[in-house]
Amino acid sequence: MSKIDNKKALPQIHQRKVIAQSGLFKIEQLELEFSNGEKRQFERMAGSGRGAVMIVPFINEHEFLLVREYAAGTHSYQLGFPKGLIDPGESAMVAANRELKEEVGYGAQELIALHTVSMAPAFFDAKMEIFIAKKLYAESLVGDEPEPMEVIPWSINDIDTLLAREDFVEARCIAALFLTLKWIKEG
Amino acid sequence: MSKIDNKKALPQIHQRKVIAQSGLFKIEQLELEFSNGEKRQFERMAGSGRGAVMIVPFINEHEFLLVREYAAGTHSYQLGFPKGLIDPGESAMVAANRELKEEVGYGAQELIALHTVSMAPAFFDAKMEIFIAKKLYAESLVGDEPEPMEVIPWSINDIDTLLAREDFVEARCIAALFLTLKWIKEG
Repeated sequence: MSKIDNKKALPQIHQRKVIAQSGLFKIEQLELEFSNGEKRQFERMAGSGRGAVMIVPFINEHEFLLVREYAAGTHSYQLGFPKGLIDPGESAMVAANRELKEEVGYGAQELIALHTVSMAPAFFDAKMEIFIAKKLYAESLVGDEPEPMEVIPWSINDIDTLLAREDFVEARCIAALFLTLKWIKEG
Repeated sequence: MSKIDNKKALPQIHQRKVIAQSGLFKIEQLELEFSNGEKRQFERMAGSGRGAVMIVPFINEHEFLLVREYAAGTHSYQLGFPKGLIDPGESAMVAANRELKEEVGYGAQELIALHTVSMAPAFFDAKMEIFIAKKLYAESLVGDEPEPMEVIPWSINDIDTLLAREDFVEARCIAALFLTLKWIKEG
């Protein structure tokens, strides 16, 4: 057991090449040499460079909005917070308001940057900035969704029911939920 | 805004094919038709079918252990809880104890199933079962890690410092941390 060794050298990347690619994904192979001399081949997803946003929108003091959206990975409908990729040239906050308008039909007069999370840094360079949205006003934008999303209000006093659901399991949503509750608690 | 429509039909998958593949990843393309008639092409990662485990190991009442591990996706060292894939034929609990022995050099006399989370269901079918480990005893197993992991004890009374770190950002770790604090609080 130890203190954190901030001087530890990163592995050297001797070679990197794209070994598979689709419209959405690009898989890279890295030839790595760790500081102890161990050599390994690792695979990772080459990032698009585009960050993402997630929004926890409050319609009043004690209710936030969830969306119910088709998830191809699990071929199921999943509950979660509205989210999406940041468009080129867009700031994270502008993206958050745009996604909110596209997915739930509201804009926000107030957007608060809450936290930045990452999805499996072992394989991805995918950052997501989480915002709290308040003072909502009705405004819709047409997004690229194949069908309108169901929008579901949920009480912050009924978190246990939400966490027990089999369709509210995405780690980024669970993290956003708890970070929001912490933020509320700390006033 | 609405109640959850549990009768909503899933999109039909008219066709699926593997369009790119590497040693670790397999990318599938789906031809989908939503219940409103909209047709779309989606990409997703075909799952390995193997689940994963994450372990929050307590060395005493108020300290848990973190590991510091190289993350290829971000080419950086990241702090997080020990984790790994479930081996074929292995139960999640057995996998949790094995990963604990491989990554931090302890076994656990007590493993408590805390929660199951998922990583981006839009693209993956990747479930991770989170365990709390207690009553640790020294026992090491050799894993496939290229270098020994740094093992860092952390106090449950110093969560804000951990959340503020740029190397503790993985959503699954943040979710595990908050779920653990909730579990402790509820006794």
